[in-house]
Amino acid sequence: MDQNQFFGARQPIRLDELAARIESVLSRPDVGDRMVEAIAPIYRAGPYDICYILSKNNIEALQTCRAAAIICAPALKSYIPSDVPALVSEAPQWAFARAAALLYPAAMRPQRELSRQPGISPQAEIDETALIEKSVEISPFAVIGARAVIGAGTRILSGAVIGADVKIGRNSTIGSHVSVSHALLGNNVIIHPGVRIGQDGFGYAPSPTGMVKLPQIGRVIIQDYVEIGANSTIDRGAMDDTVIGEGTKIDNLVQIGHNVQIGRHCGIVSQAGVAGSTKIGDGVMIGGQTGINGHIEIGSGAQIAGKSGVMTSVPAGARIGGTQQGQSGTI
Amino acid sequence: MDQNQFFGARQPIRLDELAARIESVLSRPDVGDRMVEAIAPIYRAGPYDICYILSKNNIEALQTCRAAAIICAPALKSYIPSDVPALVSEAPQWAFARAAALLYPAAMRPQRELSRQPGISPQAEIDETALIEKSVEISPFAVIGARAVIGAGTRILSGAVIGADVKIGRNSTIGSHVSVSHALLGNNVIIHPGVRIGQDGFGYAPSPTGMVKLPQIGRVIIQDYVEIGANSTIDRGAMDDTVIGEGTKIDNLVQIGHNVQIGRHCGIVSQAGVAGSTKIGDGVMIGGQTGINGHIEIGSGAQIAGKSGVMTSVPAGARIGGTQQGQSGTI
Amino acid sequence: MDQNQFFGARQPIRLDELAARIESVLSRPDVGDRMVEAIAPIYRAGPYDICYILSKNNIEALQTCRAAAIICAPALKSYIPSDVPALVSEAPQWAFARAAALLYPAAMRPQRELSRQPGISPQAEIDETALIEKSVEISPFAVIGARAVIGAGTRILSGAVIGADVKIGRNSTIGSHVSVSHALLGNNVIIHPGVRIGQDGFGYAPSPTGMVKLPQIGRVIIQDYVEIGANSTIDRGAMDDTVIGEGTKIDNLVQIGHNVQIGRHCGIVSQAGVAGSTKIGDGVMIGGQTGINGHIEIGSGAQIAGKSGVMTSVPAGARIGGTQQGQSGTI
Repeated sequence: MDQNQFFGARQPIRLDELAARIESVLSRPDVGDRMVEAIAPIYRAGPYDICYILSKNNIEALQTCRAAAIICAPALKSYIPSDVPALVSEAPQWAFARAAALLYPAAMRPQRELSRQPGISPQAEIDETALIEKSVEISPFAVIGARAVIGAGTRILSGAVIGADVKIGRNSTIGSHVSVSHALLGNNVIIHPGVRIGQDGFGYAPSPTGMVKLPQIGRVIIQDYVEIGANSTIDRGAMDDTVIGEGTKIDNLVQIGHNVQIGRHCGIVSQAGVAGSTKIGDGVMIGGQTGINGHIEIGSGAQIAGKSGVMTSVPAGARIGGTQQGQSGTI
Repeated sequence: MDQNQFFGARQPIRLDELAARIESVLSRPDVGDRMVEAIAPIYRAGPYDICYILSKNNIEALQTCRAAAIICAPALKSYIPSDVPALVSEAPQWAFARAAALLYPAAMRPQRELSRQPGISPQAEIDETALIEKSVEISPFAVIGARAVIGAGTRILSGAVIGADVKIGRNSTIGSHVSVSHALLGNNVIIHPGVRIGQDGFGYAPSPTGMVKLPQIGRVIIQDYVEIGANSTIDRGAMDDTVIGEGTKIDNLVQIGHNVQIGRHCGIVSQAGVAGSTKIGDGVMIGGQTGINGHIEIGSGAQIAGKSGVMTSVPAGARIGGTQQGQSGTI
Repeated sequence: MDQNQFFGARQPIRLDELAARIESVLSRPDVGDRMVEAIAPIYRAGPYDICYILSKNNIEALQTCRAAAIICAPALKSYIPSDVPALVSEAPQWAFARAAALLYPAAMRPQRELSRQPGISPQAEIDETALIEKSVEISPFAVIGARAVIGAGTRILSGAVIGADVKIGRNSTIGSHVSVSHALLGNNVIIHPGVRIGQDGFGYAPSPTGMVKLPQIGRVIIQDYVEIGANSTIDRGAMDDTVIGEGTKIDNLVQIGHNVQIGRHCGIVSQAGVAGSTKIGDGVMIGGQTGINGHIEIGSGAQIAGKSGVMTSVPAGARIGGTQQGQSGTI
């Protein structure tokens, strides 16, 4: 059975055209008219497949590889058998990602479930005061709240709930069962199923009769090209805003507390958590299950290993891991 | 742009009236007729805003503060410039929370998405045997199961699913996409979006052909004034009940296992987990990402730092952190 | 109030018939005609209840136990008062689980909310190209996508969203608000509320302008008798498949990354995470909040304690715990 059955018929593309579009040099121009239609891992790539190598780890597999072409960095080109076309790129991961995006456009954002024409489902509930731009898709049982604005080309999947006054930019995708409130989202944002954006932060004042709720009146700002993984939670600010910067990618089951400000192009892996009011710079990488304390700063470019506990501020460019000893996290 | 655009027009209140309602002493009775309409952090509070200070950290900001009034404890009053009115309170955090609740009543519980009159959506599916009291709000695509009881003033948001025989008290709020089954909920409970209450605990018996499911026949009991954060999961008891005591606040992505009994006025921070059959006293604070083993007891008033691993029982009032060495958690 | 109110009237069964069906020996054949109708913990079991003991811990409770019968291993039989019938089993946990399954069939899988006859709700949205076998139940506001196949006896609960081309076997149960895409599910699978199956894995290529999305074109394969707990997330493969083997049980809030392959009859406790491309053998037990690094192998029968961090491969049968020192997880 076709392992890629969910992405349907591909549009074949000529190898030389592909080379141009992924900014790579084709080692064998004589086969530029070969048609390519899929990607595959090196060990099972066939004559219509593109594959890639990033290191010498797969040299053995190379000897029997029957791929249409192999993407690689210049330093690895000599390891590829001379009869197999190489697509030589200074940025082979990027080139492969770009090739895959060309061949599988439907995998670039979550898709509608139903086979009927795209558009606005009569089974969705859309407030009469909402502003829906052209070419928006809204699936069944989605709810669009009062005065919400949905930009052109944005797709709202089944059962998603968009709260009152929320604004979503263009060409964004809101997965099924997502709830969004008290938030402004940019363009080309992808929110995967079950994400919660804009609910109350965890704020209470002590009192003799228990904790008293501190109303949370801030917002969530999600900038362009952000992607947020399934079932993650992004709380709105207490008085200011929670901000996720442009191009930042967040994995599944991640918690972002109120007032957290995250810079551009960060990566935050599954089940990590960032406590309230912490500021994170640009290009920060945070491993899975790592916890970041509240009210600290993580400098740009810092890399924090998985399962770490970070209690105090981290300078820009630092590479750290583990749980800091002798210190307790805030509770 | 107004950072608090999601909470609409406020009802201004006189400063002297506010002082009385938050049980504070106004240092300048001559300005008691000033109108207050918002809260703000000290660094950007304007002439209609209330702000607060809890320590001397913000003394510098005080010098230029143009707030309508600043809430503070008696010991900090002397740091406030004499022309700025102080609202002096023995419980400044409580006083600020109370002021915010007066100014932003809509922030005290999740709100409906749609602009039409509150009530029961014709798009909801309500079993004919369910008992819905007066002034209940039910949003589109919610499901109310057989014989369920929903108390007066309770709000069920879009797509929430209330299982058969579930009882929910009065003035409670069930967020969008919440599922509740096998549970009794009290009054003034707030359940944020995506919470799962009442599904099977994780119970299996070993057998030669793999794990055999142990039916879970207990319930979940959630007492008054409990608040549960987005995407948290509360399993029902195996044979007895899982209990969340009055006033306890649970953050996002928290796991509460079957038969866990949690006392009153506890706070459990994001991504913490409590394994099955553990008993937690009153007023216990548990930090984020902390794991509590099963079948142990945490005494009242204990404080457990974030990212801890607690393998054995903890005495009342203890303050602990870190992962206990030389011991393995149950698996 | 009956603590088991949610499971309704039971069908009483004769004690001797029960003994036969749970492959146990009844110590007092003279009372074989007693009727049994419930299970209970030993401290409150009454004359119509079955209870069980696994160790000598409850010997004191035994002295006053009024249960209809007590399930125990042969070695514990002598501790049971002679007038109380024992059901002696070589596998007492299994025998108790089997008895409970007989007495509470409704607790073996999530139930419909509504009281009307089972069947396909007119409020569900089912693509005209989907193939729905006989005796399928579909609750309100569920969505069944294009060309999806749902096997006989399968139950799709309220608001669940089944994506295009997904295939689900027979007698499986999909909980409320679950989303499934790019996946094949077997028979007798149970998916609890809020689970996310088949969304994109976390894959990006670095580039000078930030991370570039690597399309994820694999699938999720879930074999027979798998159970997955509330709000867990199972990402689809990047190019190959993510696989959950037969009979494996996964608890709540667990993350399974792309390309992970899990064997048969494993148990994975709440809030654990398995990073991409890791292979896990058969019968592996993983404790709560444990993180397993990517691209490693966990041998069959390994047992990993809760809150562990596993950075390198683990041999079959190993029993380990804690976080490996001197090593950073992949980020």
